[in-house]
This record gives sequence, structure tokens and C-alpha cells, in this order.
Amino acid sequence: MSDALLGADRRLEGPVRIVGTGLLGTSIGLALSERGVDVSLADASPASLALAVDYGAGRPAGEHDEPRLVVVCVPPDVTAAVVAAELAAHPSALVTDVASVKLAPLEQLRALGADLTRYLGSHPMAGRERGGAIAARADLFIGRPWVIAGHDGIGYRDGGPVEDLILDLGATPIEMTAEEHDRSVALVSHVPQVVSSLMAARLAEASDAAAGLAGQGVRDVTRVAASDPALWVQILGANAAPVHEALVALRTDLDGVIGALEQPTAPGARRAVAEALAAGNAGVARLPGKHGTRTQFAALVVMIDDRPGELGRLLVEIGEIGVNMEDLRLEHSPGAQIGLAEIAVLPEAEQRLSEELARRGWRIAGAWQ
Amino acid sequence: MSDALLGADRRLEGPVRIVGTGLLGTSIGLALSERGVDVSLADASPASLALAVDYGAGRPAGEHDEPRLVVVCVPPDVTAAVVAAELAAHPSALVTDVASVKLAPLEQLRALGADLTRYLGSHPMAGRERGGAIAARADLFIGRPWVIAGHDGIGYRDGGPVEDLILDLGATPIEMTAEEHDRSVALVSHVPQVVSSLMAARLAEASDAAAGLAGQGVRDVTRVAASDPALWVQILGANAAPVHEALVALRTDLDGVIGALEQPTAPGARRAVAEALAAGNAGVARLPGKHGTRTQFAALVVMIDDRPGELGRLLVEIGEIGVNMEDLRLEHSPGAQIGLAEIAVLPEAEQRLSEELARRGWRIAGAWQ
Repeated sequence: MSDALLGADRRLEGPVRIVGTGLLGTSIGLALSERGVDVSLADASPASLALAVDYGAGRPAGEHDEPRLVVVCVPPDVTAAVVAAELAAHPSALVTDVASVKLAPLEQLRALGADLTRYLGSHPMAGRERGGAIAARADLFIGRPWVIAGHDGIGYRDGGPVEDLILDLGATPIEMTAEEHDRSVALVSHVPQVVSSLMAARLAEASDAAAGLAGQGVRDVTRVAASDPALWVQILGANAAPVHEALVALRTDLDGVIGALEQPTAPGARRAVAEALAAGNAGVARLPGKHGTRTQFAALVVMIDDRPGELGRLLVEIGEIGVNMEDLRLEHSPGAQIGLAEIAVLPEAEQRLSEELARRGWRIAGAWQ
Repeated sequence: MSDALLGADRRLEGPVRIVGTGLLGTSIGLALSERGVDVSLADASPASLALAVDYGAGRPAGEHDEPRLVVVCVPPDVTAAVVAAELAAHPSALVTDVASVKLAPLEQLRALGADLTRYLGSHPMAGRERGGAIAARADLFIGRPWVIAGHDGIGYRDGGPVEDLILDLGATPIEMTAEEHDRSVALVSHVPQVVSSLMAARLAEASDAAAGLAGQGVRDVTRVAASDPALWVQILGANAAPVHEALVALRTDLDGVIGALEQPTAPGARRAVAEALAAGNAGVARLPGKHGTRTQFAALVVMIDDRPGELGRLLVEIGEIGVNMEDLRLEHSPGAQIGLAEIAVLPEAEQRLSEELARRGWRIAGAWQ
């Protein structure tokens, strides 16, 4: 871990004012306060503000605060209005926001005639959309991408404090335009949310017997369908154009599969389905692996009894063997008190790990490269 | 673990003949051979057969074998033809198959005039569609649901050996009709596969910058999109009707979201999106949790340095504290040599675990019920 993550190398100069003490605002406040930055907090809800202060995220804002940086952490719908008010109230401060859409707030600020020479929007790819200060954590941003959405209205060097904030919090600044950002998160976040929700909605019709057959595949596809509708309505509404465009393209592909399955033995039907599946293969290969690489790992499946400490004992022994685990997936066997641990390692390490674990009495249930 | 899983209580009487030595056939052969059952193997490919024999899944079939049970483990497209041939070749044997669709083979067998009084189809909800004997494992079926697709042509008691096979392999027999089976797996397996592939196909258009913003959500939604198209074309083609029906319903919902995002500020647009998301909430709640229950767990997020043994050390300490981990999810921080372990525990255990871990020096990054 770099010194920066341990707090040894603070860049950002305070005071910093945080508006909105939900998950993101409180987490930013916690991290900056830990580093000794003077943080003042404001929230429309006195109760929410008091909670964030109790957690140690900062002090309540005073009338005569003169922040250098204002971080607006409010829902997407009200981001532009709050940013405009902050720009007006603190004429010497740089203002950023953390909303998960970037073009709509920028355009709204332009329409409001706000002073864009002091506004630089940003978006940390962190947080789980679980609400409130109660879920906040100072470490939330460590190692995460954090987009800085540059625009023509602000000079490069004037935005420095936003980059300092990101680096101080342990995140990785990534610069792109608001348009690029919104198109990107549409593909890797907003459209997957819609698709997961649409799939999960089909399960409402499943019988208990059908639900009982569910395996890890459908669980993974539908996990994010448990997200908060109220927040996602705002996000999808504020990024409607690129989400709409991707969904229309998806519908075209869906129509192809539906047409093929309508007459599954007709000429060309199999090919249409095969091409849709192959396109999925190609698309999923575009996602970077751990640490941003695209390394393919080998996997080893080990059986573990379902009692406290068994999985830990396995992982300690893997550590003793000196092999670094690249990923771990647990698979539960419905109805059985046993689990399978799928351990991803570098391909060159697999054989040795497999032999050593077997020698130590572990049951290897499978292996593949 | 019950005695049955340890091989102490064999029910199935051999000899058993297995036709098709891919992942499932070889795994069944390995498990039965370990239990002392006489297993003969057949495969259209002599090389595949030899490999399965080398692995210890059984002996090559002889001309005068008289199996009591024949297990057909060939691709869905040829299942009915092989089952019919086996019924004819072994007039005193019960024949089952393990294809992931059940109605099409049954109807094809009826059309072929096969002796259905000795056929009982089945489907183990196991296997990862990774190919061949090389991925086989005797433990593949432990704790998994295994559907028995009963039909009017066979008496209840005549199917006993299929149930014995399932129980001997450590799986849980679940009886349903072929129609129920096919509708069920359409919803919990086949439609999620299509949806995941369609989503992943959209990523082909993602820029490198966009792919770099990908988080755990899109990874989960698209994981099964890496599956083998050749196999899935057969599965989807053989279960076209219920998959088609569910996809058409999904398209209706998709059209609703697309329409709403076309004019996101129009009256009713937000409500339409919110209802689609809420329907996803309701659907995902239908999936049973671990061990078939629907218990809601509390979660604790712990930071772990990315070096061999660290995660193991954490899990051993959790074992020492005496708390049983219900689930574990690792989250990698792109670009950082650090990870987050999200540990699910029973709600009543969370506070104690959190306090004990903090006392032992672990950094708790978050917690929620």
C-alpha cells in the first residue's frame, strides 16, 4: 500500500465544506477528518447532519466559513441547484459534486448562469447505494476509479483541489468529458441495472419448485436487482439518452433471439442464437480483470465442510504454500451443509497448489485452466 | 455430513452402463466406481472413452453386459435417439438421461415408439458446462437438486433405481413433470443466460475507458455470458417455447422502460421506471438463500491486504471467534493491491464479530443489517 493510503502524504488544503451527509458525503468527511483536514458539514436534515457529526465526519457548518473546496453530495435531481447555490454563497471556493451523472448537472448549471470557472464535476465509482451516514466508511474510495468530468469553462490548474481530494482518499482520478462519463456508466452500470431488474421481475412468476432449482448463475445476474428504486429512478432519468440508446440496441438483439426461438428449427434460427451467445462471449471479455489486467486465471475447486473456521484454515494453508489467491468464489449447495470454494490462481501456480492441498488432506473437487 | 455422502450406505445395485463420457457421465462414473458399483462406459469417441477409463470412471463396455440401469449423458440434440437405442439394446434395463431439457426428449421417444415403461428422464442441477472428462469430479452432485421428470408411462416403483442413483451421489431428488421442469429451468437458468449474453454483447461497444469503470455489478450480471455457445444453442433450441414466452414478457417490460426513457420528464415516465425496478426487487426476493432458507444476513466489510494468507488469517480468526460465515464476497479494487471482504453472518452475530475483529486489529470498512 502506498504512503498516501496510510495518510502520510496529505495534498488537499482545507477548509472543505461537504453538503449532503449521506453515504458519500459522510464517507468523504470521515476520510478527510482522519487526515486532519478542517471539514464543515451541511445537510437539509438536521438529524442526518447530527448523525454525521457524531460519527466524526466533521463539524456543523458555521455562518462565516470560507471553504476552499465545496463537495456537493446530494441526489442527482437536486445537484445542479445545490451546486449553483454553493457557487453563489462561496465566491472564492471551487465546487465539485459526486452525482452519478455528469452531463445533466453541467447543462442545468449553464442554464442557471452559474460561474462554471469554479465548478468541476466528479463521480467516484464507489458506494453500494446503501443509504445514509450509518453505512459510511473512510475507506470507501480506496483503489476505486473516480471520474473528473472536465469542461471548457474551467482551466486545468484551477481544478487541482479536486484531484488532490481524490488522491487523498486513495482513489484513482480518471479524466473524461461529461458525455464520455455518462455513456460509459450507461454501459457498465445503468444498463446492467435495468437488465438485472427486468430479469428478476420474471422470477415473480416462478413457482416455489422453480425457485428451488436456482443456482449461482441466476443469483449473479439478479443480484443488483435488489437496489433502491427511488435512487435509480433519478439516475436513469438523468442519464436517459445513452441508457435508452443501449437498451434499444439490446432490444434489437433480443428480437433476434425471440424470432429464432419462435421457430427454433427454421433455417438460420440456430445461427441467430449462436451469434447472440458468441457476441456475449466477446463482450464479457472486454471487462478488465483484477488490478486492471486481463489475465486469465486457473481455478481449483476445493470442498469445505460448513463449520466455523474451515474456509479460513484452507486459506491459511494456501498462504503457507505461498500461492497468492487471485479470486475466490463460494458456492453453496442447496440443502447440504457443505460448500465448494473456487480458488483462482495464476495458471503456473495451479498444479503445485493442487498437489500441496491434496497432500494436506483437502478434497479437490475439480480444476481447470 | 450424512453417512450416505461418505459412501457408507449404498442403495443402487449395478451393473450400471453410462453412455457419453463428458463432464456429467464421467462424474457419475467416478462417484459410482468409488462406491464399488460395476460401471461400464461407452462413448462415440474412443479417445474420450479411454480418458474416462484412465480417470477411473469405469471399464469399457463389453458385448455381453447386462446393465440394470443405463444413464445417457449425451448432448440434448441426440438424447432421444441414444435413449431409444439403449432401450432396444438392453430390454431388461431401466434407462435415464441427464439432459437439461426434459419435454423434447420425452416427445421424441414417444414419436419413435420407444418402450416408455422403462424410461425415466432426469436432470442434475450441477456442472458448469465446462467440457469433458478432464473436468469431472465424483463430488459434482453433492447437495444439488436433481430433477426426476416422471410421466404416465412408467410406474412409480419402477423408477426406484434412478432415485437410488441420485441419493447415492449425494444429490436431492426433486420430482416434477417434464413440462414443470422445462418451465422452471427456463426461468432460473435459460432466460438468465440469454439476458446475460445480451447485456454482455453491449460491452463490445464500450471504450477502454468505459470498461475501466466496470465494477462488481456488471461483472456479476455478465458472468455466465462466458458460457459455451455450442451447448447453449442446443439447450435453448430444445426448450424454445418457455424461454420464448419469458423473453416476450421481458420485452414488454423492456419496452416500458425504453418508452419512459425516451421522454424521461413526461407524465408517468418516472413511475414506469420505478415500477420496473420495484418488480425486480420483488422478483429477486423469490430466490431462496443458502440452505434453501430465505434468511436475511447482516454483512461486515473488512479490508485485507492483497498478499498470500491475509484472507485466510482473517477467516481463521472469524473461526476462532466462533462465528459461522454464511457467505463471502471478495471485491477487488481496480488498480489497488487491496481487497474488501464482505462477510455475511446471522444478524445476531454481527456486533460481536465486528468488535472482536476490530480488537484484533482488522480494519472494518463497513457494516449493515
